[in-house]
Amino acid sequence: MTVRVDLNISLDGFATTTDQTPENPFGQDWGRLVAAYTATRTFRERVLGDTSGAGTTGVADRYGAEYFENIGAEIMGAGMFGLHDNAHDPGWRGWWGEEPPFRCPVFVLTNGAPRDPIAFDNGTVFRFLTASPEEALALATEAAGGADVRIGGGVDTVRSFLAAGLVDRLHVGITPILLGRGKSLWADLRGLEADCDVTSEVAESGVVHVTFTRR
Amino acid sequence: MTVRVDLNISLDGFATTTDQTPENPFGQDWGRLVAAYTATRTFRERVLGDTSGAGTTGVADRYGAEYFENIGAEIMGAGMFGLHDNAHDPGWRGWWGEEPPFRCPVFVLTNGAPRDPIAFDNGTVFRFLTASPEEALALATEAAGGADVRIGGGVDTVRSFLAAGLVDRLHVGITPILLGRGKSLWADLRGLEADCDVTSEVAESGVVHVTFTRR
Repeated sequence: MTVRVDLNISLDGFATTTDQTPENPFGQDWGRLVAAYTATRTFRERVLGDTSGAGTTGVADRYGAEYFENIGAEIMGAGMFGLHDNAHDPGWRGWWGEEPPFRCPVFVLTNGAPRDPIAFDNGTVFRFLTASPEEALALATEAAGGADVRIGGGVDTVRSFLAAGLVDRLHVGITPILLGRGKSLWADLRGLEADCDVTSEVAESGVVHVTFTRR
Repeated sequence: MTVRVDLNISLDGFATTTDQTPENPFGQDWGRLVAAYTATRTFRERVLGDTSGAGTTGVADRYGAEYFENIGAEIMGAGMFGLHDNAHDPGWRGWWGEEPPFRCPVFVLTNGAPRDPIAFDNGTVFRFLTASPEEALALATEAAGGADVRIGGGVDTVRSFLAAGLVDRLHVGITPILLGRGKSLWADLRGLEADCDVTSEVAESGVVHVTFTRR
């Protein structure tokens, strides 16, 4: 069982953008940050439900496909589920639509009021809990049944698992742009590479894929 | 005439390390940051004076050789010359020894007292001046006689030229380690890529070379 993280970051380390507006709910920066990933065939099929076969099939798509392989459970922060602006609505089912791409148990970390689990036909089940990284990982590991656990995001959640030494494999797709703003992945992670093998690969798009794998 | 910058940085963006001690004047972090570069044949020959042919000859050495090609003048900060701890000594000739690797006019930016130029037999001439980036570049451009000008470092000096939009080509060798401390190259450089072509290449060592070239 491997605990995995995959994130898109800018060359200056920003993993979460902060320029969202009501008119542009993802923000302009987000689109630029993830452009190579959202162009892949895997993303188009798995996240957008586009079964036409459209999309890129190079290095970015290989990482995109690996992203979904052998994941038995996922842990994410409340923001990634879309809870922050919707916690007042007991009927809110998240912003991933009726075909969330996870297709496995998803543990949503929240400090808010208890919420009932939400199950989707495709196997995605969101459960809400207030827990430490260690507690959440224990639950997710059990739910994964021997398959891998992904720490999905956002960056604060990922950083809490990295700081606790709970991540076995960290893959970042570094888009060679400088955002100059957002939430940084890297602060205070000195020495993360110490017990890891590190590989790097440049995709056709120019995105640099760096993977830290704990030995 | 191209204004060029080459820097080694960590994955979290640090270009200048800050763990120097009297016993370890470069610091432990510096050695790890530049290990692939200092192992090259070019560095060993040009900077250390080792003419035995020892050293690596792969991608890092290609960038190392390009570093010295067609440079007609260099601009550096007082710290890179070694002035900060030695400004009181009028006889101080810098920490580069009697064969400084520059072999061209070097303009050292300082807010300190005037100092006489220092000339070395190999063509290196250090001149000391208090000047804006634009003023220093005008002098260096004239001295370069049509060849390129390098902004050598340290990171504060490089950032002042980047912020002023004076750099035509920025090459960073990104060592896949997280230092978590030092001086960052990247803060407040949002959009640097906007009018640039960006290329990336992974060296045998795992260092990722990213180059921004202004169109």
